[in-house]
This record gives sequence, structure tokens and C-alpha cells, in this order.
Amino acid sequence: MAEPIITLTTDFGEESPYVAAMKGVIVRINPAVGLVDLSHQVPRHDVCHAAFFLAAAVPYFPAGVIHVVVVDPGVGTERALLFIEGDGHRLLAPDNGCSTLLARSFTQPPTVRRLTEPRFWRQPVSATFHGRDILAPVAAHLSLGTDPADVGPLVENWVRLEIPEPHFGRERLIGEVVFVDRFGNLITNLPAGPFAALAVRPARIMVGNAEVPRTVRTYAEVAPGELAALISSVDTLEIAVNQGNAAERLSAAVGTPVQVIVE
Amino acid sequence: MAEPIITLTTDFGEESPYVAAMKGVIVRINPAVGLVDLSHQVPRHDVCHAAFFLAAAVPYFPAGVIHVVVVDPGVGTERALLFIEGDGHRLLAPDNGCSTLLARSFTQPPTVRRLTEPRFWRQPVSATFHGRDILAPVAAHLSLGTDPADVGPLVENWVRLEIPEPHFGRERLIGEVVFVDRFGNLITNLPAGPFAALAVRPARIMVGNAEVPRTVRTYAEVAPGELAALISSVDTLEIAVNQGNAAERLSAAVGTPVQVIVE
Amino acid sequence: MAEPIITLTTDFGEESPYVAAMKGVIVRINPAVGLVDLSHQVPRHDVCHAAFFLAAAVPYFPAGVIHVVVVDPGVGTERALLFIEGDGHRLLAPDNGCSTLLARSFTQPPTVRRLTEPRFWRQPVSATFHGRDILAPVAAHLSLGTDPADVGPLVENWVRLEIPEPHFGRERLIGEVVFVDRFGNLITNLPAGPFAALAVRPARIMVGNAEVPRTVRTYAEVAPGELAALISSVDTLEIAVNQGNAAERLSAAVGTPVQVIVE
Repeated sequence: MAEPIITLTTDFGEESPYVAAMKGVIVRINPAVGLVDLSHQVPRHDVCHAAFFLAAAVPYFPAGVIHVVVVDPGVGTERALLFIEGDGHRLLAPDNGCSTLLARSFTQPPTVRRLTEPRFWRQPVSATFHGRDILAPVAAHLSLGTDPADVGPLVENWVRLEIPEPHFGRERLIGEVVFVDRFGNLITNLPAGPFAALAVRPARIMVGNAEVPRTVRTYAEVAPGELAALISSVDTLEIAVNQGNAAERLSAAVGTPVQVIVE
Repeated sequence: MAEPIITLTTDFGEESPYVAAMKGVIVRINPAVGLVDLSHQVPRHDVCHAAFFLAAAVPYFPAGVIHVVVVDPGVGTERALLFIEGDGHRLLAPDNGCSTLLARSFTQPPTVRRLTEPRFWRQPVSATFHGRDILAPVAAHLSLGTDPADVGPLVENWVRLEIPEPHFGRERLIGEVVFVDRFGNLITNLPAGPFAALAVRPARIMVGNAEVPRTVRTYAEVAPGELAALISSVDTLEIAVNQGNAAERLSAAVGTPVQVIVE
Repeated sequence: MAEPIITLTTDFGEESPYVAAMKGVIVRINPAVGLVDLSHQVPRHDVCHAAFFLAAAVPYFPAGVIHVVVVDPGVGTERALLFIEGDGHRLLAPDNGCSTLLARSFTQPPTVRRLTEPRFWRQPVSATFHGRDILAPVAAHLSLGTDPADVGPLVENWVRLEIPEPHFGRERLIGEVVFVDRFGNLITNLPAGPFAALAVRPARIMVGNAEVPRTVRTYAEVAPGELAALISSVDTLEIAVNQGNAAERLSAAVGTPVQVIVE
């Protein structure tokens, strides 16, 4: 793939032609671009899911890659469309907070611009599909070398999601499930560092009212079907069932409280 | 991605190895091609769905891109395989009508050829997978510069789907749902122009026996859970529930009648 | 796409950020690589499914392509990670047997190496995501020209799956279903050659206790809804229902016995 790369993350699914239309718009403007699908299975309108997804995916890419994100329940309203640049990562996304978690990982506050220059847009702009009519063509023009300063003015205010924060007490960490993956593994917002520090002392881990009996390094250290806590691949506390489904086992979902209690 | 681009649209799903095999065949013939997935989630054997999908996706691509379509309930029978070129768009597809709607959008009738030249095919040709054995290798050879005149002779007759046509009365537009997207939005075959013209007068919009209470410009103009009519991203009348599912709400599906009645 | 190509086959699904993270790691090391998705819908931890999938997909690709496979129930344990090269095909996969069937198709025994050189890995290596931390970066380095001899030493022993073997009696072939595709078609392990030889004489085909009434060349030779046996696109006996679902009709699944009995 040629060096300018554009990735796509949407909640469109594949059965609808919307992703295909966006790819067409991009390739028409820059036939030499490299298109990379990140996901089209973000749950519909789930901005929180998108926020976690982007924070767990974008940082692995090199600087300069352009990430187009279309999870956009407010399409056609006055919500802005943004260009966001931090640590060299470039995002084009609706101003709905989907980059909140990613932006926290940047070493400096990101540069944020509001897309206001219709010369980079597809015309006419529909009221229901700004991914195709604005985000995709702006991404393609940026991939051709358009200066970000040309796509719109800097803005100071943009939407941040209220991301649930863990609480650190002296004898207790209190957090919650922030993501459930395809395997039913529960990814929490409790960072591995404090957890690891606490865990040198005997501690109990609770998901809702259920206790997690063991702490392990990797799934297969417990027998198939057994529940355990471990450090996730994004360095947070994770609850899993080896070859099973922790979300089903514990009736847990995004938002379920998780505690680490020192005895 | 290098400039010759081949897109893939199939009903194979991803869990089966069929898409992967087609990609292998293409890359073996032209390792420098750019592969772009449009969808592998066309409902099984649903030629009408494929027809709508292609009409809503292919026109956004630039001329010269080759689109391979494998929705092929008649594989192995005498149905022809076609090369179809219109407005510079190139399709390779079974002769089952899946390009009917797309072809209508062309400014001139397309050039259509029947694939008859086995020298561009994978050998031996199976009886059950012409996507891999004929369409994929012909696409790869075309991407390398093979003259379309070499893949087979021009044909005059090819299958057209009977696409439901809207009826325009003096006080009534009568159409139907032609596509339901992942969000449950109902895309109809009623073009936006006449609808917009009618809608300057008070009008009632009926989906089956249910009335749609409001007409809006974009989803978020009604409260979450409310039903409304609007202009779709493909410029037709669309029925949607903001952040909900109109297909479920109205028990509507492809084929459900939709009327606009002037009072 | 530039000539070095890396394909991805995983059981991650798309809703999770794991595939995206792997793509980022690869592109960061080699921005000019061509990424090709084979599937992210391998059923969770289903090494047998992966084995069939790879055998039915990889051989179509040209030599030199690098195939990364992450179906890895043993992640974080002592199971090795392997580089496997045969007939020019290059695989990076956990040592769990997922390449067993593919390796049988090679004209010579493959060269197998154990990945032991951390200088090609992402650091720190997590305990739960070796696809991102070891397989992806090693693939990217190989795509840049790293000598396979540098990634780790040759090994003689590696895990083979016990793949069910068909039995050939004088008047009977006994095999089983080894794959069910999206259409519900039953792909068996009975090779087409012996079956075709037997079938010149009157024969009965049994799936479990149900008899398959007809043998045809392609699906559409029977009426929609009718059951038939035919030669699959991978040259084995296949049981299908034209425009229907043979797996549901016969309550058959992977492992269901299939017999061809000469009368």
C-alpha cells in the first residue's frame, strides 16, 4: 500500500452500502491511498464503544495515518465535524466525544479544528451521511498533502465524554467494566499499576456481587471454564473465563462495578 | 494501493474461505493490485439486495476500477458471466440482473460482454465456484491491462431484474421499501424530487397501514424513538426512527408499500 | 498494493480493537506493506476450523505472501509461536496444529522455526496478546526482508492436529463433515477422486442416518429446496440443498459421519 494510509471505523455494518460509498469517494480523490478497515461493527451510535476502540487501536499506528470515524447519531444537526491531531495521529470524526480516551493518551493536548471549508467536501452535502460527503473527502485531500490549516479553524472547545474514572481508596480500588470483547472478557478501567501494587497483599476482586477467585498471568493458567482476573492487553484489570464467557457467567456488561478490596 | 483497484462484493460471509481464495487468485496474477472489500454480507442469493447495493456504491468510485460481484445462485448452470462497462465503471458479475439498477444510472447503455475465453480462467474450472475460477482471474487480467475485447464477445441481451417502479398519480405517489439498512431505516424507491414537490402541500405518508407523523431533514430533528420521513443519502424517501428501528416499529420489510398522499 | 503482502486470519471479530491494533503494529514497521484480511470470523478458539480455512485459502496465494494466523487458546503459556514455510507460502501462527492440513498439501515437508528472537517483537510482550506483540511485528520485519533464519531456530517437532481420515473399504467410503459454510453446505473429507470412481456404480450416500437422493454437478441441477451430493470447490464430496441449508435439514455438523455405499 502506498504510504498515505486512511483507516475507517464505523457503525455501518457491511450489509449496507455506506462503507463502500465512503471508500469510493476516497479512492476517487486519491487512487493511490492505502485503505485499512479497522471496524464497521461498532455497536450502533455507541460513542463510548468507539472511544474505547480508538484508544485501544490508534496508538499502534504510525504518525501521519488518517483515521476516519463515523459513529454519528447527531448527523445533520449543528454538531461539528472535527480534525484532531495529537502525537502525529490524525482523526476525522464527529464532535461527540469519541476521541476523548485517545486524546488522554497524547503527550500534549491535541490540535483540534472544525471542518468548515466546503471546497474539500462532496457536493451536494446530504443531511444524513456526512461520513461520505465531508469526512471521507477531507481525509482524501489530507492524504494528498492538503495542509490541515486549510480544512477549518482551530477550536478550543470540543465535546469530551464523561468517562467513568476509577476511585483509589487506601484499601480499595473501585472501577467498572468499560468494554466487553467478542470472547466475553470484561475489560475494566482499573489500571494495572495500582492493581499490581495492591495485589501484593491478599485482595478480593468483586464484579458486582460475585467474587473472582484467582489472579493469573494468562487465560490458560486456570482450567477451561474457570474464572480469573488478569492484566489485559491494554494494561488494565480484566476478568475472563478460560475458553468461556465471563460476561455471561457474571451477567456483567459495560458499567458493571468492579472492586479490588485489600483484606 | 497501486492504481489498478479491484473491489469485491459477495454473499460468502467471512467465516468461509471463499473470499480468501478469490483474493489469493487475484494477487497471484497481479500482486500489485489494490484489493478493496465492499461487502461479503449480501444476504445469501439475494440478487435484489446486490442490485441496490451496487447502485448505491459503485458510482462513487472513479472510472477504471474493476468491481467483482459474486451473488450467484445459478453457479454452474448455463447462466452467463458478464463483463459490463458503463461510464468507465467495470463490473464482472453473473448474468442475473444484479447490475440492473446500476446500469440505469449510466449516461449511456453499457457495453456488455460474455466471458468466453478460458485462457483467462483458472483451470480446472469447478462447477460450484466461478467467482474463484472465472471472475477473479478475469478481473486480475483486466487489472494488468488485458483489453476487454479479449475476454469475450459483445452481447445484446442480458438479464434485467424487474425492479419495482414507483407510480406517480396526481395526488399520490405509490412506491415500496427497496432496502432496509443495519439501522432498520427503510429506503424506498420514491425519488426525492417528486416527493419534495408534493410535500410543499400537506401530505400524508403511509408505510403499509401506518402513518408517518413528520417529515424532517435529518434523524435528530425528532426525539429519540420518534418516527419520521426524510430524504435518504441516495436521494429517495426514507422512513426512520431516531436512534431506533423503523423496520421493527412498522413491521416493514423490502416490498412493503409506501404512499405519499396529498390531502 | 506494494508487493510485500501480509494476510490476517483471526478469531477476534471486528467489534473488538484487536485486529486494528495488529494492523497498526504492522503498518508502523512497514508502511508500504499490503494488508489483506482473510477472515476475523473464525469461531473462537476453533483450531480445526482454522486448519480447514487455511488449507482452503492459502494455496491460492502466490509464494512470498506472509499469512498471520491468530487463533490461540494457549496464549501466554509455553506453547511456541512458529514460522512455517512450504512451497513458498509463509505462515506465522501458534504451535497448535492450525497449519496441519495446509502442510499436507505442500510438495515437501515445511521448514519450521520457533520464534525466539525478541529483537523483532514489540516490547513489553503482554501475556494475553501475542498476535499483536510477536506475530504481527515478526511478519512486518519479514516483509521488509528479514531473513527467516534470524527469527528463531529450526524445530523438528510441532503440533499436528488429529485430522479425521476417511476410510476406504471395497464397497464403502467412510468419512465425515469437516466444515459447514455460511450456506449450510456440508464439506466432507471424502476426496472427489475415489468418490467419482465409486459413483460410476450405483451408490447410496448417507449423512448420519439420512440418505442423499441425488448426485449432481452443481447446486441448481435440483429444484430449490432439494438435497443433493456434489463435488465441492475443494474437490471433496459436498452435501447441499439448492438455495437451502443442508446442515439444518440434516441436523448435521462438523463430525457427522458421511458414507458412500456401493450397492
